[in-house]
Amino acid sequence: MVNAEIIAVGSELLLGQIANTNAQFLSQQLAGLGINVYFHTVVGDNAGRLEQAVKTAQTRANLIIFTGGLGPTKDDLTKETISRLLGRRLVTDEEALRAIEAFFARTNRPMTENNKKQALILEGAAVLKNEHGMAPGMALTVDGITYMLLPGPPKEMQPMFTKYGAPFLRGVFSLSGRIESRVLRFFGIGESALETALADLIDAQSNPTIAPLANDGEVTLRLTAKHQDQAEAKRLLDEAEAAILTRVGRYCYGYNDETLFTKTLERLKERGWTIAAAESLTGGLFLEQLTAVPGASAAVSGGVVCYTNGVKEHLLGVPRPLLETNGAVSEPCARLLAENVRTMCDADVGISFTGVAGPDPLEGHPPGTVYVGIAIRGRDTTVHRLALSGTRDAIRTRTAKYGCFFLLETLAAGR
Amino acid sequence: MVNAEIIAVGSELLLGQIANTNAQFLSQQLAGLGINVYFHTVVGDNAGRLEQAVKTAQTRANLIIFTGGLGPTKDDLTKETISRLLGRRLVTDEEALRAIEAFFARTNRPMTENNKKQALILEGAAVLKNEHGMAPGMALTVDGITYMLLPGPPKEMQPMFTKYGAPFLRGVFSLSGRIESRVLRFFGIGESALETALADLIDAQSNPTIAPLANDGEVTLRLTAKHQDQAEAKRLLDEAEAAILTRVGRYCYGYNDETLFTKTLERLKERGWTIAAAESLTGGLFLEQLTAVPGASAAVSGGVVCYTNGVKEHLLGVPRPLLETNGAVSEPCARLLAENVRTMCDADVGISFTGVAGPDPLEGHPPGTVYVGIAIRGRDTTVHRLALSGTRDAIRTRTAKYGCFFLLETLAAGR
Repeated sequence: MVNAEIIAVGSELLLGQIANTNAQFLSQQLAGLGINVYFHTVVGDNAGRLEQAVKTAQTRANLIIFTGGLGPTKDDLTKETISRLLGRRLVTDEEALRAIEAFFARTNRPMTENNKKQALILEGAAVLKNEHGMAPGMALTVDGITYMLLPGPPKEMQPMFTKYGAPFLRGVFSLSGRIESRVLRFFGIGESALETALADLIDAQSNPTIAPLANDGEVTLRLTAKHQDQAEAKRLLDEAEAAILTRVGRYCYGYNDETLFTKTLERLKERGWTIAAAESLTGGLFLEQLTAVPGASAAVSGGVVCYTNGVKEHLLGVPRPLLETNGAVSEPCARLLAENVRTMCDADVGISFTGVAGPDPLEGHPPGTVYVGIAIRGRDTTVHRLALSGTRDAIRTRTAKYGCFFLLETLAAGR
Repeated sequence: MVNAEIIAVGSELLLGQIANTNAQFLSQQLAGLGINVYFHTVVGDNAGRLEQAVKTAQTRANLIIFTGGLGPTKDDLTKETISRLLGRRLVTDEEALRAIEAFFARTNRPMTENNKKQALILEGAAVLKNEHGMAPGMALTVDGITYMLLPGPPKEMQPMFTKYGAPFLRGVFSLSGRIESRVLRFFGIGESALETALADLIDAQSNPTIAPLANDGEVTLRLTAKHQDQAEAKRLLDEAEAAILTRVGRYCYGYNDETLFTKTLERLKERGWTIAAAESLTGGLFLEQLTAVPGASAAVSGGVVCYTNGVKEHLLGVPRPLLETNGAVSEPCARLLAENVRTMCDADVGISFTGVAGPDPLEGHPPGTVYVGIAIRGRDTTVHRLALSGTRDAIRTRTAKYGCFFLLETLAAGR
C-alpha cells in the first residue's frame, strides 16, 4: 500500500492569499494512480516548522510530495531542509543549470547569482524536468520513504507531475491495476435522505467505494473501482450504479461533469427545440446559466426579467386584476408568464420563475415560496410549487436548478 | 501570542474533489485579527487519523479551528472525536434542535433520526449559531487551548465565523484594535499597470502594508496597519489611501466588500432611479448580479434577454434592416436596445450589452468585441466599445462589470 502525504510550502498559503489548489490537483492524480492520500499539510517558509512537518509525515506516509520552495530566493528552503534531514548533499545538475542560463539568454535578462541555486538537486535524486519554468523537480527514495519535490506554480507543477512525476511513481511503486471512477449527480433529494436510502450499500462498500458529497443543493456520489483489468473495473461500477439507480434513479440527472443546465440544453437540442424564460425572483439567473454554455444559442431564444409587477403586466401581459387578487407569487401568474414568454419569443418551451427570494416576505409569503411554470407548444401548461429554505442566493440558485429538473422530468415523460 | 492551526476534515478534500478554500478564508480572517497561522492540515473522515492530527496540533498551537464533519451522517465525526480526546460529553442543544425541526417542517420534508445528531454540542462549549444551515458551530477552551468547530459548507461557515466566531476569538484572546485593514477596489486597470503606477509606494511599504490581488478582472489593494492605538492605525491607512488615490483614483470604485453591482444600486437609489437592461451576450448576467443584492427591487425594473436576433427585432424593436446591415454587434444596435428597453420597462436608465462572448467569432467580429449602450431619461445615449480577451466566462463577466463601471462614471459626471 502506498500512503501519501502532500506538504505544500509557502507563507502565502497561510496568509490566505491563495488556496492550495496544488494539493487538490495532486490528490486527483494520486487517486487515479490508486495511491491513498491521508493528509495534506501546509507550512510556511520556515525551516524549523517545515522540518517538524516532514518528521510528522515520515511517521505516517511512505510517499511525501512537496510543492513550493524550490525557487531562487532565501525564502525558498524545501531542498535545503530535506537535504539536512536526510543527510544528502545538494549538487548542481548541469543540464538544469544550462536550461536556466538559456532561459535568461533567451529573455535578454541578466542572470543573477541566486538563480544558480535553482539547479541544485539532492544527490542521487531523479530529476523531473521543468518545461514551463526554471526550477527542476526531483524524486528519491531513502529508508523506504519516497520524497518528491515539485515547484509551486501550478503552470509548472502540473505538467511536470503528469509527464515525469506520475511515471516515476508507477515505476517505483510497481503500480499496475486500474482505477475507474464515475460520478452520479442527483437533484431534488437531500444528502441525508439519499444516504438513508442507500445506507446498506454505503456501509457494505469496498470495491467500488461510494463517496457522497453535497454542494449547492445537489448531491453527488463518486464510485471508484479498483481492478487489474479495466473492463472488470467498469463492470463493478455498472453493477453498483444499477443497484443505486433502482432506489433513487428518479433523482439522478447525469454523470461526471454534466450539470442540470448542460443536460437541459442537450435534451432541447435533441428535439431541435428552443426555450424562453420569464424570470422574476431569479432575475436572469436561469438564462445566464444556460447561455454560459458554449453553443447555447442553438436552443435559447431569450426572455424577460420581470422583476417588477409593471414589467409583468406591460411586457408579459399578466392582467393587473390577476396581480391584484392572486398576486405575483401565485400559480396563475406563473402559468401566464410561462405561456406568454413562450409565444412572445416564438419558442417551443416557455418557463417561468416567480416567488420570494427574501430576506423579506412578499405578498404574505415567506422567503422560499416559489412557483415554476412550464409551457410547451401544444401541451397543457404545468406549474410546480416549491417551499425552499436558505439564503437569498441559495433560493435563487435552487429555483433555477429546479426549473431544469422539472423540465427534464417533463421532457422525459413526454418522450 | 496566538498560534493557530486549521484542520479541515473531509475525504472529499483528500480525493481532490474540492480545494480547501475554507482554510484560505479563515487564514485571511485570522490575519486580520492579528492571529498567526502556522499550519493547515487536511484529514479524511477517519477517527484515528483525525485524533492523530489533533494531538499533533495540540503540541504546536493554542487555537485549533476545525471545518467539516458536523453533519448528520456516520462519516461526520469531528465532534465525537474531540469529545473523546477532551473527555467532554456531547449534549443536545435544545435551541439547535428546534431550529433543525423547524427547518424540516418548513420545507415539508420528513426529518430522519440522524439529523438529531447535528444538535449535539460539546458540554460547556459556546454555541455558534448556523443561520444558513442546520449544524451549529461551537467553541471552548480546555487546558489553555481553544477549539473552534465550524461546518464544512462555505456558505454556512463564512457567515458563522464572521458573525460569531471572530467576536468569540476577540473576547477569549483579548484582541483589541491593533490591526486595521482596508481594501481598495479597482476596475478598468490591470494588475501590472496598477503596480507600476504604485511601484515606489509598494516597495517602501511597511506600515501599512500594501498587498495587491487580481481577481475576475478586478484588482484590489489590501492596506493593513498595525498600531496600539486604533485611531492612529486608521490615520496610517488614510494617509496611504490618499497617496494611492492621487495616482489611480479614477479606477477606484469602492471599499472592502462593495462590488460594482452594490455600488451601482446605491447610486441609483440615491437618485430614486430605476434601471432596465437588454442583454444579448451576457444572457441575463447583469440583471442577475444586480438582483442578487437584497433590496434590489427598489431600483431594478427588469429587462429582456435578447439572445437571438428574433427577440431583438420583435420584442425590442430593432428594425430588421439595421440587424442586416449594421449587425447585432454594432453601435447603433446597442443604442436602440438601451433606449427601447428603457422605455418599454418605463425605467430611468436603460443599459444594453451586445457582442461576441465566443468561443466562435460572430458577424466577422472576434470574441471580446462588445458594445455597451447607456440611455438615461432626458440625456443623450452613449455607447462604449470594448475589445476584451479571455474565456467566454471572463468576457461575459467583464462585460457586465464594465456596464456598472461606465454607468458609475456617467452618473458621477452628470451629478
